[in-house]
Amino acid sequence: MITSARNAKVQHLRALQRLAKRRREAGSFVVEGGRLAKEAVESGWPLRLALYTQRLQASDPELIRALDARGLAEQVSESVMAAAGDTQTPQGILLEVELRSMPMPAEVNFVLILDAIADPGNLGTLLRSAAAADCDAVLLAPGCADAFAPKVVRSGMGAHFRQPIQSLGWDEITRLVKERSLQPFVAEAWEGTPYEEENLAGPLALILGGEARGTGGEAARLNPRPIQIPMPGRTESLNVAAAGSILLFEVVRQRRAKAKP
Amino acid sequence: MITSARNAKVQHLRALQRLAKRRREAGSFVVEGGRLAKEAVESGWPLRLALYTQRLQASDPELIRALDARGLAEQVSESVMAAAGDTQTPQGILLEVELRSMPMPAEVNFVLILDAIADPGNLGTLLRSAAAADCDAVLLAPGCADAFAPKVVRSGMGAHFRQPIQSLGWDEITRLVKERSLQPFVAEAWEGTPYEEENLAGPLALILGGEARGTGGEAARLNPRPIQIPMPGRTESLNVAAAGSILLFEVVRQRRAKAKP
Repeated sequence: MITSARNAKVQHLRALQRLAKRRREAGSFVVEGGRLAKEAVESGWPLRLALYTQRLQASDPELIRALDARGLAEQVSESVMAAAGDTQTPQGILLEVELRSMPMPAEVNFVLILDAIADPGNLGTLLRSAAAADCDAVLLAPGCADAFAPKVVRSGMGAHFRQPIQSLGWDEITRLVKERSLQPFVAEAWEGTPYEEENLAGPLALILGGEARGTGGEAARLNPRPIQIPMPGRTESLNVAAAGSILLFEVVRQRRAKAKP
Repeated sequence: MITSARNAKVQHLRALQRLAKRRREAGSFVVEGGRLAKEAVESGWPLRLALYTQRLQASDPELIRALDARGLAEQVSESVMAAAGDTQTPQGILLEVELRSMPMPAEVNFVLILDAIADPGNLGTLLRSAAAADCDAVLLAPGCADAFAPKVVRSGMGAHFRQPIQSLGWDEITRLVKERSLQPFVAEAWEGTPYEEENLAGPLALILGGEARGTGGEAARLNPRPIQIPMPGRTESLNVAAAGSILLFEVVRQRRAKAKP
């Protein structure tokens, strides 16, 4: 059992959680908690190292058995877990997962493009909603938070394992949207067509901009159609993850309506 | 200028941010940042005390003049502000606002009921979406986070000043829903009618349950109609604030469609 927070494995997982640079160098990231660890195991992504507490083993022996069988599991003391994890309430398990870049599917007709979504909680929630809406891919334009930072992974609730998430420059994004013949739409706060009046059942790319500044100038290259969510209340704007979820599920709603006999 | 974090006013604002008990005793709460402080000033709610930095005064002299004219503004050093505030990046102004309970409007036909939404960020985002959707009131059932905790106020982005927010027991909630003849609906993850197939244009109360456990047994007293957001992706659930925002704006969409000539 590891009882010192200075242990090299503990330090490695700490650094992976804190530093995007370390994640890039190692080609891996960390998931915390039994639920996400199970998703990681089931995803088939290569696993590298698991630290767990006796308490977690008692509550979820099967998970630890599965990790132990691969020679990955190391028990640590509660205080080491508290020092190693990213959350205020340690979840009892940290699992290092090798970063896989999921390939773009052959057929693509629903893509979410995120422009400068810097808040990790908002980014994670958007990845989760995109996975629930069955987006084919999420493209992260410059200025987004690192998709594999601990808070993004936590808020994503497993979305990282279910859909391609690619960090791209605007040149690549523009090329991809054109090659795949996607109609680009951009969410605006106070201009554009009310969202439900647009036909969102065809192949499309939805662009969502960062909370503070809306979509930057670069997104304009795609010449997207502006859409808005009319707000009857006297308020400045919606949270970007809330607005994005509303638009993603309007796409789902229109496609379901179209598919009906 | 206050230069010590031990100053009684600084200690008072710190305690108001950290302790719900202190907020109840004092009948006040704290907003942080120039944007929310301006909303508070414009709301007409009684203000008690403002602490600000020289830097904030330089960037927003008008706000400080308005507070100074009421004899409320005290300049503090940057280090005192860092110690007094709740955020990692101090916003330069903290403003104590007297808690007003906004009365329920005479006509009520759109109410959001939150059941055990314990995460402050989710609660704040839901209050913000409810204000944008022009809900008549938000009722907080037992188990919700304190609506006036700093993170809820921040995520609410001014929603607190625009709609009645009332913490009630289930007896009072049940009475209110019946008295106002509201049709109760409850959001479920995996059962109920697809949300867009229900008529949401009439007077209604939408019940949303806490992320971890869904709606508790108490909400069942209202005998609500279950609705769900069909999710084509293989995912367990949506974030509760995302799901709530989707449902709130489906109500808006249906009412807008109905109001059209």
